[in-house]
Amino acid sequence: MARTRIVSAPEPTLRRLPRYLHLLYTLRTGGIAEVSSTFIASELHSDATQVRKDIEFTNIVGHPKTGYIVEELIEAIEVFLSWDSKNYALLAGAGNLGTAMLGYPNFKKYGLIFLAAFDSDEKKIGTKIHDIPVFKMSDMPQLVKEWHIQTGVITVPSQNAQQACDLMVSSGIRGIWNFAPIHLKVPAGVILENSQVSQSLAVLSHKLAVQRGNRL
Amino acid sequence: MARTRIVSAPEPTLRRLPRYLHLLYTLRTGGIAEVSSTFIASELHSDATQVRKDIEFTNIVGHPKTGYIVEELIEAIEVFLSWDSKNYALLAGAGNLGTAMLGYPNFKKYGLIFLAAFDSDEKKIGTKIHDIPVFKMSDMPQLVKEWHIQTGVITVPSQNAQQACDLMVSSGIRGIWNFAPIHLKVPAGVILENSQVSQSLAVLSHKLAVQRGNRL
Repeated sequence: MARTRIVSAPEPTLRRLPRYLHLLYTLRTGGIAEVSSTFIASELHSDATQVRKDIEFTNIVGHPKTGYIVEELIEAIEVFLSWDSKNYALLAGAGNLGTAMLGYPNFKKYGLIFLAAFDSDEKKIGTKIHDIPVFKMSDMPQLVKEWHIQTGVITVPSQNAQQACDLMVSSGIRGIWNFAPIHLKVPAGVILENSQVSQSLAVLSHKLAVQRGNRL
Repeated sequence: MARTRIVSAPEPTLRRLPRYLHLLYTLRTGGIAEVSSTFIASELHSDATQVRKDIEFTNIVGHPKTGYIVEELIEAIEVFLSWDSKNYALLAGAGNLGTAMLGYPNFKKYGLIFLAAFDSDEKKIGTKIHDIPVFKMSDMPQLVKEWHIQTGVITVPSQNAQQACDLMVSSGIRGIWNFAPIHLKVPAGVILENSQVSQSLAVLSHKLAVQRGNRL
């Protein structure tokens, strides 16, 4: 597929595209070659117009009769999300969550390749976790440059998160994926994505409370 | 605070409220008693009108001069998200991610209390992980009823996720928090929240790609 200049898409669209992908993978596994926006919408409890609008960002247009070619759509979304190219990453904080992240098998499918982990615990430095070597924090600037690492994942405790973030920024990291439940400051030009489980939990617990309220 | 009937809020608002909370906790720790929507907006690279609209859902109105009382706002958001009441939960899949979830210290702050974990691995059944007992899957229906568990967290591999989900639904679980990167089906009336790290990663990797593209 010819790579055209990627246009910026709104965040809600970006968050929905992986959900379409997961459905499309299931369809592909089931041997289904074509899919309509109506079908995608009904499976995901969404709206067909929204599905079509989201997909238009990837430069794929559905056919009025048959809809989309599953294989084409998968490729277009993967390219649009840049999941077809390698995104070299490091992780700071090799505790419970950090260890789970380093061992998460799906990241490779999304182009995310961990090259290094960093921790302040001397017992972990020099070891490997899920085959990823653990370094001391002060090695970060050099390794970021040598290994062309652009993404930094923060899984340290909250009280150490801003310090880890600052070190990543001064080391040359361009995108920070923060899992610490704290508000971080980054300079302009550095991308900060907060993947706080608390945001997802907020949606769930609020909906549960509304449901309980409606049943009283 | 008198508990009024909770109105339903749009998901983007629900996802932003925890970010306000994290900032408010930081302010409280710093001894700051009042805060304006303009300050919250500038700290979170957001818009003051949006901040005010989001906060209005919690029935808190700011004062034109001083803004919000930090302590009042924290309480209002916690009540609105139902984080001030206990949400008993179980977890299916005590692997790397499941273990990290069971040990995540912040969930208690959000009202989420894990009472039980479930796994198909005989070596794990009967043990405890971060003080949470691990049971065999077939024990789920009885424990959900006895312990009034309403939330189920799915951290099993993708290929087992629908089966775990079905078991939760038939056991009486009302809200499912899915961490498996797969599209799940639930009957009407059951709340499904997908906390797929892939959605957050999609935002980050797309923004990085746009940034790279703009620099070429």
